[in-house]
Amino acid sequence: MITLAIDAMGGDFAPKTVIQGTIEALIANQNLNIYLYGIQSQIEDCLQNIFTTNILNSIKTRLKIINTPLYLPMNAKNIREAIRDNLPYSMLVALKDTANSKTSIDSFITAGPTQSLVLASYLIIGTLPSIKRISLALMFKSIDHRTRILTDAGANAEIKEENILDFVVCANFLAQTLLHIPNPKIKLLNIGTESNKGRNIDINIFKLLSNNPNINFQGNEEPNNFFNTEADILISDGFTANMILKTFKGTVEMYKRHLKQILTSNLCTQIISKIFLEKNIKKHFQQFNTDETGGAILLGLNKLIIKAPGNSTSNTFYQTINQTINLIKKNFLKKIIEKFQ
Amino acid sequence: MITLAIDAMGGDFAPKTVIQGTIEALIANQNLNIYLYGIQSQIEDCLQNIFTTNILNSIKTRLKIINTPLYLPMNAKNIREAIRDNLPYSMLVALKDTANSKTSIDSFITAGPTQSLVLASYLIIGTLPSIKRISLALMFKSIDHRTRILTDAGANAEIKEENILDFVVCANFLAQTLLHIPNPKIKLLNIGTESNKGRNIDINIFKLLSNNPNINFQGNEEPNNFFNTEADILISDGFTANMILKTFKGTVEMYKRHLKQILTSNLCTQIISKIFLEKNIKKHFQQFNTDETGGAILLGLNKLIIKAPGNSTSNTFYQTINQTINLIKKNFLKKIIEKFQ
Repeated sequence: MITLAIDAMGGDFAPKTVIQGTIEALIANQNLNIYLYGIQSQIEDCLQNIFTTNILNSIKTRLKIINTPLYLPMNAKNIREAIRDNLPYSMLVALKDTANSKTSIDSFITAGPTQSLVLASYLIIGTLPSIKRISLALMFKSIDHRTRILTDAGANAEIKEENILDFVVCANFLAQTLLHIPNPKIKLLNIGTESNKGRNIDINIFKLLSNNPNINFQGNEEPNNFFNTEADILISDGFTANMILKTFKGTVEMYKRHLKQILTSNLCTQIISKIFLEKNIKKHFQQFNTDETGGAILLGLNKLIIKAPGNSTSNTFYQTINQTINLIKKNFLKKIIEKFQ
Repeated sequence: MITLAIDAMGGDFAPKTVIQGTIEALIANQNLNIYLYGIQSQIEDCLQNIFTTNILNSIKTRLKIINTPLYLPMNAKNIREAIRDNLPYSMLVALKDTANSKTSIDSFITAGPTQSLVLASYLIIGTLPSIKRISLALMFKSIDHRTRILTDAGANAEIKEENILDFVVCANFLAQTLLHIPNPKIKLLNIGTESNKGRNIDINIFKLLSNNPNINFQGNEEPNNFFNTEADILISDGFTANMILKTFKGTVEMYKRHLKQILTSNLCTQIISKIFLEKNIKKHFQQFNTDETGGAILLGLNKLIIKAPGNSTSNTFYQTINQTINLIKKNFLKKIIEKFQ
């Protein structure tokens, strides 16, 4: 059996989309147990609104609701104090249960605020030996169907060059273990390919990675090649990575809107598009579905902590649970703990 | 008459595209004089390859070639020394002539390396009183047909918060004078809208701009809203802005490639697309033509210095010349000098 802790209250459309994705995952995976953290009355209302009694009965032995009267808002402050004072925020209670080995929780998933999650995980879960900074590794499938890793995808708005090896070593191990790439190609996202491009920190990171014989550093990559880069791992700071991901999302959405407008600009093109192109265009749009990037892994921790996208739909959350189950089945946590012992 | 100095040797496809765009501008604007800086033999070969003798004769009294045996490579170093030693690099000679009031050059345009241009302009042209850092202001027309200004679009890979007002005041004046917006809306590009989002510098810039009663600061803008933001001016550091622009470019190119693939995936869709959609799709692609963003203005200098995109096609360069002529006709330089006196 696999046991997951899930924060029902995190994310833009919580608890609805989280609960829907979670129950769908329970239906699809008979070996799955879920601890669902949140405001019990809201969760129960939600369950009854979305699912029939028959469905709920079929999974009820594998779903346990843990009532936590509070949840963290987008800009939560005083996380340290909330942990110290044992305030019953859904994310914090779930993290404490995950840290407690008696619960046998394999992983915790939340679509809640990233910065709070990073700090709370650091404080409650603790880091692997030698790791000083945790990072967020996003695995994304590009249009060429290859999966790449972007790290740090948002855990640290600012980094120091001495942190970068923590990120790289963890991501390297992730690519080896999960993507089965023996010697992952690593590139640094930067404004130009030459070694002296970028900010001082980029120039220093370039030097540091170039001089490291244990990794396969291939130099800088410009973000226009984000989706067809030769790299398996793209390195960035959390601020820049977030700006890149948001620009991608905005551009795709603008593009889709405009293409739709053009294909329906008059009755003739509207009919033609409908009859001959609808399937293809739908596929085209799906290929660029920015809602389906899936979850990101918080790397460097003693437990498997997964960040689902803040704007998770039920399907995004469902996919994130499946990704997490895959990581658990592959024993990723055990392997990374051994690696860092 | 308007007189422009142009660096024939700057840009990825120089001198060909630069020369072609320049001659087309000379043909279109009878009141235009050009000083063209570069390797004379290359320029002359290029002119004769592209244009007929009749065309060249018709503009020859308004085109003067200044032979400069050297030109700056992408990663030029030792700019200070090259200026001090009067080395005949096309960009540096042109800047010196532009600085010299006897030449009556109204503006200098180059598609050459940005960092070299920024440093050389700072050293040769000098800044307006009170301006410590110059910035690159990119004017871009968005899909809603509104022109917005992005600054700093690449002059400074790193900035300090005390520089930001230099950028904002100049861009504000540009929007007022050129776009006729009395009270331009200003937003800071950031990973979230809340005042405590981003890196330390972003949080500090937010405070600084919020507390300034002379500008219309409207808070943070996430880059997914880059193209439909309410702002007239978007503020960023040069590194982040460059990453955003490159992500936009890469996303659009990937999208276009994929859409083309889909529309030609079988003979049926190929024929249908050709007959019924070609015009619309062409228009759709043009709307997202990342090569046509046009030039950017180096703000904060005592002269009008224009940076054309490094990957300028002849049309990009032609458009950049026309933009520059527009700025000259509107007396932008005189007005900004008066403003900063």
